[in-house]
Amino acid sequence: MTDKAFQDYYSKGVAVCYGCGYDNEQGLQIKSHWDGETSVCRFTPRPYHTAIKGFVYGGLLASLIDCHGTGTAAAAAYRAEGREMSSEPELRYVTGSLKVDFLRPTPMGVELELRGRTVEIKGRKVVVAIEVIAAGEVTVRGEVVAVQMPRSMGNI
Amino acid sequence: MTDKAFQDYYSKGVAVCYGCGYDNEQGLQIKSHWDGETSVCRFTPRPYHTAIKGFVYGGLLASLIDCHGTGTAAAAAYRAEGREMSSEPELRYVTGSLKVDFLRPTPMGVELELRGRTVEIKGRKVVVAIEVIAAGEVTVRGEVVAVQMPRSMGNI
Repeated sequence: MTDKAFQDYYSKGVAVCYGCGYDNEQGLQIKSHWDGETSVCRFTPRPYHTAIKGFVYGGLLASLIDCHGTGTAAAAAYRAEGREMSSEPELRYVTGSLKVDFLRPTPMGVELELRGRTVEIKGRKVVVAIEVIAAGEVTVRGEVVAVQMPRSMGNI
Repeated sequence: MTDKAFQDYYSKGVAVCYGCGYDNEQGLQIKSHWDGETSVCRFTPRPYHTAIKGFVYGGLLASLIDCHGTGTAAAAAYRAEGREMSSEPELRYVTGSLKVDFLRPTPMGVELELRGRTVEIKGRKVVVAIEVIAAGEVTVRGEVVAVQMPRSMGNI
């Protein structure tokens, strides 16, 4: 893994995202990195991110999957083009569709690991499959269909 | 519509949800009501709930759909049994699966309306279809497969 996360390459126009923007003080500011062919994001839910006592809120888990998904989509698109994320033109992705299956309750009080895998890259679309792992167990499975953002939309 | 929201009937054990619990100070505290056969929730995103400048964060939209979905599932289950939400035994739902299609960007700065429709009630499962409407336009479609919570899980 390198120190610089996928999200650290985002330009100012797309860095205000509540989930992953470094320029959103109140946001979650998630960070994703490659670990070989897998993208990894680690996040410890805050004490108030509860669903019911002792378990993590599903909407937070969906948010983590969403942003780790679009981040992985961008990183995978650069890889497919054989270039660094610092190179131009900038490739950024938005979520077209999000699917989350909650397999079992996700416990509070542990660091979560999200592991992403690129399922498909086709034209402007990248499909990413993501697992959420808590205390060594997969608790949630997600799929993000990410679509390349028109450059005008994000001012990139 | 009555003044008391679906979520106002939740007992303490399930009222800490970040999305809809009245007992979570940092949470979104969404409220859902019946409007005939449709369930309605209105929510104005906070200024930091951005995806990119001017548009609402998808993870927030997924969270609203999630909690409005489980709330609608509970309310629909009481209706199907012909009883009030204040009556015993308490019926509460968790999300088994969540699907969100982002049809177009959702603008910031307007109150969002979520409209829910019960698609299926079968055994312990309730399926709810939800539309998010911003400035008169449907921007997001969601589906929540809600599953009745074991009473032991939520201390209800």
